[in-house]
Amino acid sequence: VTVIISLGETMLRLSVRDGDTLEGASTYQVHVAGAESSVAVALARLGLASAWVSRLPDNALGHKVAGELRRHGVDLSRVVWAPPSDRQATFFVEFGPAPRGTEVIYDRANSAFSRIQPDEVDWSCLRQARWLHLTGITPALGDGPRATVERALAEAHAAGVPVSFDVNYRARLWSPEAAAGALAPLVAQCAVLICSLRDAVRVLGASDDPETALMDLHARFRPAVTVLTLGERGAIAFDTELHRQPALAVETVDPLGTGDAFAAGFIAGYLEAGVAAGLAWGTALAALKRTYRGDLVWCTRSDLLAVLRAAPSGEIRR
Amino acid sequence: VTVIISLGETMLRLSVRDGDTLEGASTYQVHVAGAESSVAVALARLGLASAWVSRLPDNALGHKVAGELRRHGVDLSRVVWAPPSDRQATFFVEFGPAPRGTEVIYDRANSAFSRIQPDEVDWSCLRQARWLHLTGITPALGDGPRATVERALAEAHAAGVPVSFDVNYRARLWSPEAAAGALAPLVAQCAVLICSLRDAVRVLGASDDPETALMDLHARFRPAVTVLTLGERGAIAFDTELHRQPALAVETVDPLGTGDAFAAGFIAGYLEAGVAAGLAWGTALAALKRTYRGDLVWCTRSDLLAVLRAAPSGEIRR
Amino acid sequence: VTVIISLGETMLRLSVRDGDTLEGASTYQVHVAGAESSVAVALARLGLASAWVSRLPDNALGHKVAGELRRHGVDLSRVVWAPPSDRQATFFVEFGPAPRGTEVIYDRANSAFSRIQPDEVDWSCLRQARWLHLTGITPALGDGPRATVERALAEAHAAGVPVSFDVNYRARLWSPEAAAGALAPLVAQCAVLICSLRDAVRVLGASDDPETALMDLHARFRPAVTVLTLGERGAIAFDTELHRQPALAVETVDPLGTGDAFAAGFIAGYLEAGVAAGLAWGTALAALKRTYRGDLVWCTRSDLLAVLRAAPSGEIRR
Amino acid sequence: VTVIISLGETMLRLSVRDGDTLEGASTYQVHVAGAESSVAVALARLGLASAWVSRLPDNALGHKVAGELRRHGVDLSRVVWAPPSDRQATFFVEFGPAPRGTEVIYDRANSAFSRIQPDEVDWSCLRQARWLHLTGITPALGDGPRATVERALAEAHAAGVPVSFDVNYRARLWSPEAAAGALAPLVAQCAVLICSLRDAVRVLGASDDPETALMDLHARFRPAVTVLTLGERGAIAFDTELHRQPALAVETVDPLGTGDAFAAGFIAGYLEAGVAAGLAWGTALAALKRTYRGDLVWCTRSDLLAVLRAAPSGEIRR
Amino acid sequence: VTVIISLGETMLRLSVRDGDTLEGASTYQVHVAGAESSVAVALARLGLASAWVSRLPDNALGHKVAGELRRHGVDLSRVVWAPPSDRQATFFVEFGPAPRGTEVIYDRANSAFSRIQPDEVDWSCLRQARWLHLTGITPALGDGPRATVERALAEAHAAGVPVSFDVNYRARLWSPEAAAGALAPLVAQCAVLICSLRDAVRVLGASDDPETALMDLHARFRPAVTVLTLGERGAIAFDTELHRQPALAVETVDPLGTGDAFAAGFIAGYLEAGVAAGLAWGTALAALKRTYRGDLVWCTRSDLLAVLRAAPSGEIRR
Amino acid sequence: VTVIISLGETMLRLSVRDGDTLEGASTYQVHVAGAESSVAVALARLGLASAWVSRLPDNALGHKVAGELRRHGVDLSRVVWAPPSDRQATFFVEFGPAPRGTEVIYDRANSAFSRIQPDEVDWSCLRQARWLHLTGITPALGDGPRATVERALAEAHAAGVPVSFDVNYRARLWSPEAAAGALAPLVAQCAVLICSLRDAVRVLGASDDPETALMDLHARFRPAVTVLTLGERGAIAFDTELHRQPALAVETVDPLGTGDAFAAGFIAGYLEAGVAAGLAWGTALAALKRTYRGDLVWCTRSDLLAVLRAAPSGEIRR
Repeated sequence: VTVIISLGETMLRLSVRDGDTLEGASTYQVHVAGAESSVAVALARLGLASAWVSRLPDNALGHKVAGELRRHGVDLSRVVWAPPSDRQATFFVEFGPAPRGTEVIYDRANSAFSRIQPDEVDWSCLRQARWLHLTGITPALGDGPRATVERALAEAHAAGVPVSFDVNYRARLWSPEAAAGALAPLVAQCAVLICSLRDAVRVLGASDDPETALMDLHARFRPAVTVLTLGERGAIAFDTELHRQPALAVETVDPLGTGDAFAAGFIAGYLEAGVAAGLAWGTALAALKRTYRGDLVWCTRSDLLAVLRAAPSGEIRR
Repeated sequence: VTVIISLGETMLRLSVRDGDTLEGASTYQVHVAGAESSVAVALARLGLASAWVSRLPDNALGHKVAGELRRHGVDLSRVVWAPPSDRQATFFVEFGPAPRGTEVIYDRANSAFSRIQPDEVDWSCLRQARWLHLTGITPALGDGPRATVERALAEAHAAGVPVSFDVNYRARLWSPEAAAGALAPLVAQCAVLICSLRDAVRVLGASDDPETALMDLHARFRPAVTVLTLGERGAIAFDTELHRQPALAVETVDPLGTGDAFAAGFIAGYLEAGVAAGLAWGTALAALKRTYRGDLVWCTRSDLLAVLRAAPSGEIRR
Repeated sequence: VTVIISLGETMLRLSVRDGDTLEGASTYQVHVAGAESSVAVALARLGLASAWVSRLPDNALGHKVAGELRRHGVDLSRVVWAPPSDRQATFFVEFGPAPRGTEVIYDRANSAFSRIQPDEVDWSCLRQARWLHLTGITPALGDGPRATVERALAEAHAAGVPVSFDVNYRARLWSPEAAAGALAPLVAQCAVLICSLRDAVRVLGASDDPETALMDLHARFRPAVTVLTLGERGAIAFDTELHRQPALAVETVDPLGTGDAFAAGFIAGYLEAGVAAGLAWGTALAALKRTYRGDLVWCTRSDLLAVLRAAPSGEIRR
Repeated sequence: VTVIISLGETMLRLSVRDGDTLEGASTYQVHVAGAESSVAVALARLGLASAWVSRLPDNALGHKVAGELRRHGVDLSRVVWAPPSDRQATFFVEFGPAPRGTEVIYDRANSAFSRIQPDEVDWSCLRQARWLHLTGITPALGDGPRATVERALAEAHAAGVPVSFDVNYRARLWSPEAAAGALAPLVAQCAVLICSLRDAVRVLGASDDPETALMDLHARFRPAVTVLTLGERGAIAFDTELHRQPALAVETVDPLGTGDAFAAGFIAGYLEAGVAAGLAWGTALAALKRTYRGDLVWCTRSDLLAVLRAAPSGEIRR
Repeated sequence: VTVIISLGETMLRLSVRDGDTLEGASTYQVHVAGAESSVAVALARLGLASAWVSRLPDNALGHKVAGELRRHGVDLSRVVWAPPSDRQATFFVEFGPAPRGTEVIYDRANSAFSRIQPDEVDWSCLRQARWLHLTGITPALGDGPRATVERALAEAHAAGVPVSFDVNYRARLWSPEAAAGALAPLVAQCAVLICSLRDAVRVLGASDDPETALMDLHARFRPAVTVLTLGERGAIAFDTELHRQPALAVETVDPLGTGDAFAAGFIAGYLEAGVAAGLAWGTALAALKRTYRGDLVWCTRSDLLAVLRAAPSGEIRR
Repeated sequence: VTVIISLGETMLRLSVRDGDTLEGASTYQVHVAGAESSVAVALARLGLASAWVSRLPDNALGHKVAGELRRHGVDLSRVVWAPPSDRQATFFVEFGPAPRGTEVIYDRANSAFSRIQPDEVDWSCLRQARWLHLTGITPALGDGPRATVERALAEAHAAGVPVSFDVNYRARLWSPEAAAGALAPLVAQCAVLICSLRDAVRVLGASDDPETALMDLHARFRPAVTVLTLGERGAIAFDTELHRQPALAVETVDPLGTGDAFAAGFIAGYLEAGVAAGLAWGTALAALKRTYRGDLVWCTRSDLLAVLRAAPSGEIRR
């Protein structure tokens, strides 16, 4: 079986229901959330074999992360298990309807994953792999994670495995300047570059005009495909021509994980039928994600295909 | 007391909260839901004596169905109690915000009701009745249910009791062709025919132009009143003239049961003040239904009248 | 420390989740809710020292009210503790999406607060106070509460403490005529008069044209500042000139307490930077309130300032 | 159908889960609870026709009480409906594991029921009745309730309907002396007197030796049957001979309503097979009650008979 | 990797919290529960590779079953996926504290599994297997399941894979006589026979003296090991000698799945260190199971070993 | 007002309901828990003025800790507020009925409190204080916390404030040897030494005979009073004579915080009436604690006095 591999940290996400507060609530809802594992879950649910490389503490919290991913069919056999006393990364979310914004408190410093070392990982998995997916979050998490990303890129190149890279800038982890300096050499090694317009502007210094920014990134980093996500305006991409895809109308339940769903949909659609399909699958999966509570998509391949055919918005099927 | 009687199957509805999934949730919400009993509940809450004829297993699940209906004042004295080992019909619902749709998994085959036989029912109730309400779901549930509907129609005719019939096509139960064949002779015996435009088109082969479809059905089945529901466009009816009623603006919490609320409102309004009142009450009750979780309406007659007078939308009364 | 004092009754609010009913629910959510204590909580959260004068039963329910207020930092040292057999006021709320309205059932007659007597209160607190906030609810609650409001006004005048008065008419407590008769002499003693346009029209007989009503009230009651709240149209005020403030766009979770949040925001902004700031802070805090479940605001001063700077509606900060 | 009638007040019971506190909890569980209606529910579930006479406010809370009783099959056609502004009695419960005790806060003064007048009730129901059940709580609730109890006794005597009376002393409503004075003349008119040993001692001044107390009450009030409940020691009764019944072993979930379940079981068993059966059914139903959350029993006649045959303690039937 | 395979049906278990009723509850808790998959989960959690053979509907409910098992690491690659319209078996549980018993309502007739055919299964998995586990439930579920069990036994024998068989009689599925007739030839082909004393008596006609029954079964069916479980008295076994193991003291949260946990513990312990270890591991895992809500054990190998070393009953480790 | 001051770290405690697992649960219950702040809460609820010195992050999680303590009346004016990016300490609890034990996963390294420096604290509070309470947890949390404890001791001595010290050994924080070395010099400066027998044995090397251990500690550290807690065997103390106090019978809901409740009860009772009263209040408050979910006691002084008078085990007061 050819496999799509992703690598990164996954956290326990502790959140409260809409209108409730972290300060006042007496229960927190628990989800698992990590950009790269969310991509792996979405791919597995669409029927593609996926595996996730990471480092988790060998205690109830690390097992929780593993169990929630494994139930969707992600292969966890390459996860490095850290001692039980290592800490599981967490973050806290309070959803804020307008005019509030959603507030995130990260608590991921010194996590089990932040201590990962390239040599701990069994890289043989990349030799049978079809694809590798990375994000710009991982290099922000410490020297070990950064070295591990570099090693993954090197192993992928050695094995001839193409790499997609989602810039995914996190302002609470590092400055735009630090991110730009660290990410540029990594991005330059990838076949597919995925970036939000916002990150293109504030991190990579691109124009705030979408098509200008797209062509600028494409020229600068020279991937096979450059993809720019535009939020409610959809997404555009360039390989040898410009592709445009509008966004779907969506009633949002939970916005977290939208970008990861897009990335998964793009990879799946691109592998199946090229860049245009990638954009279509990506925007559809991103829209579907926003209808699920938590960072993960729960739809199947047939659910996605139904939306791609013609979303019968709000209809009851009985 | 003159009584309105309905006949049909009622299920346990197991659903998850918006954004959650049947696959992932660890608790399911339980409601009782059946088109005909929902009509009986709505009528009872509006102050009309109503009774419901059905067949339930004599176990905790059948008692749950009975208790949830009885609390609203529906007379259950004509329910046939099946052995405890008979099965209570259930269905599972996952509400899907756009671009997902709401998904329903029926589990009603071989239920206690599907085994009902006409001779089990004490039809004497129809002799004191003022009205009988039937739907097109029941004949789809098996030979016994179909024969029981035919018997109910015969008994009603013998007793001079007018009958309303709500087409209520369910694609997961039978094909449009099978439904059309089975329902046409039943519909032709009814005083009031209620049908959604969608069912008129796909089952009864009517035009997708509302007024054309209305006149077509009226000419074909010759009821005293034909009512066509149009979703967000309201409803229209014909007896000796055309009646039009726009829909109310509504913030939807739960769309299931909207059609049954319309039917109940129509019957109550029609009995009180004719077709125009029937349409007004029907669209108002349908709108109110969508504000309640579950298939049932919980409003009282005075709540309905307040909405009919001039709904001070969203106001707080204190 | 200079302190802002408010005086009034606080109730236990028992409510059900959207779409559920008081009649059908098996659990009720419990919040504490009282116009004047909600103002005290909001002020404390914005960093202003606030105290609340009231009368509570010395039992688990009275302690619940006290605890929920104290956690936000409100000074309760002037609360009068009634015997445990006195009753804690309650009310029940069923939120009704359109076309339903939200229904409130008060159960506050004969409460511990309704038996308050002016002489029970230690009025020395007013001598160090910077401000006193009253509402038109309290005089409707009985002779004791009315006399206590009058005494508070007298003590404030004696100490040179300015008073704000929020008309806050409650139709379930008294008629517009009774309210007008009782409130007019009280309002005439206040530095800041806050009134909704609806109350201005139905209780104080003002025009339904906002600016006409504003100038009319200002001329009639001669406060230093008259403030008129206009719901979705924002708020206007007059001191020596006319001030206008539009409302913010808001996704409402729970509308109760909006007016109290406005009053708190106005007082805080006014004390900090005058009438225009009062209107800006008031409308922003009112908008924020609607994003929190319960009658209270949970935001901090920096949250409010962020919204005032430029609400990045719906953005995720991570 | 011959009917057993009970008369009294039913409250909304607001409680918290074991280990939680009324002061700290953010949700309260809601049950309906009233000694006499709990008897009516238990009898209806055992298959005896029962009706309940009371007075409820015509609002969502009164309808909740009615709905929760009606679902079990109790006939509510004799309930007097008070204006919506009347108050529904409530009480609050915090269960306290040892060494705490369970704490109850009543909030029933000035309720709709406390204002009942004898002439409001349609007493014709007693003419077809087979039995009337009263308790010593009702006379403590006000002059109207007391007069209504007296009238019910007079009507029952006129119709030849036997009466059972459960002393049910409530220390938070009146003193032992006041209760003794009010209850003695009522008890003297009853066919069946039910009293706990504790109430016999502290209210009726009996010995704390069970059999001495039993014979003393029997001699003093001269009912056909005197029943003394002894908690974990079971119950004893005297008609023309002494009957003894030990209690069943029970794992208690919720102790409230135990005495009412006993009374219902006694009445049902006594009507079916005499005093010994009454004691057996009463102690069994009391034990079953303690396994249900809330004041009501949910078992059926066959569940009760199974326990009477041989309680298969803790077995799983599958 | 050598693998332990089990085969059988898994249901959705819908239950209510202690003291609540299926009839009255508005939410049901959902677990997955099936004797053979519970064994597979327990083995996987103890670190043994396990796989489960079954047939599930390809819809949200079937995926729920699969996901809940896969999260623990069970290999589901041999599950046969039935059409989405096939039904997922369910059952309903109401836990009844003494003197009630726990009541189970099965709803598993006509399920996807009941239609399994031997030829649908990829039996190649048995060729690499180390062990096969079967139960006496499967043959009761229909002709297809029975033929599939027979085929599994034949394939195991052909591959030289030893088989364990847990009698697991279900009175709601068939009579003791039918079970005895069907199970005897199956049991006679197994290496390990596991049976409760209760089933040995009522199905296999053994003595109610444990050791007599054990020796009788051992003589009759001639397995390598016969194991008799005795509930609170522990378990005994015979291979070439008699082994005795007392039960552990346990505070029971949920008794369902105890027998399956014993079977898994026995298999794991037996494979590691023989019959005595099997009994010790089985009784320890059975005790641990009763401390978890749901049918599954959640402990790890190290948790089990800690209990085996010396259960530090109730201690807090911090 | 004379004030009792405590100093230490408070965590967010994330736990699951009995029988559920950290690995499987989808919601976690949130409590605040810290040995020293639990003592402060208990004292405040008993009517003694208490204050708590600590360091919290100025974000929603730090405010949650502050709010939950402030609601009980603890004075937080000496809390040092760290930047919002500092981390709030957390821990995770899974309660395990026998034969499981309760498992705790600490996540408190690098917390805001672990970075506290002695000079950050406003020690003037100690000059008006009546008592200072410390525990052996704080010195285990880092150099800053250890220096802060030493400074607090020095300040208390300078101000003539007596100090109580609860040994409270935590095996997950340091070894018995490290604890013994660090704690011995601190304990030697205290007026009241509180220690569990278990800690006395494993950390301080005392005999496992209670009275021998008590006299040994008393001789070694020379406090005014030495208190040894014995779990279910109660507590003993020595000042100039030996005091013995048996434990109360208790139905445990949640054991965490028992020792802190004992310490608070001892301090309150001792200050009011000497060592014997301290032991009586301590064991009673410890028993009451175990009936509340969470680490805190919620009872009032009158609840405690009622238990001390004669615990009416399990009685319902109504």
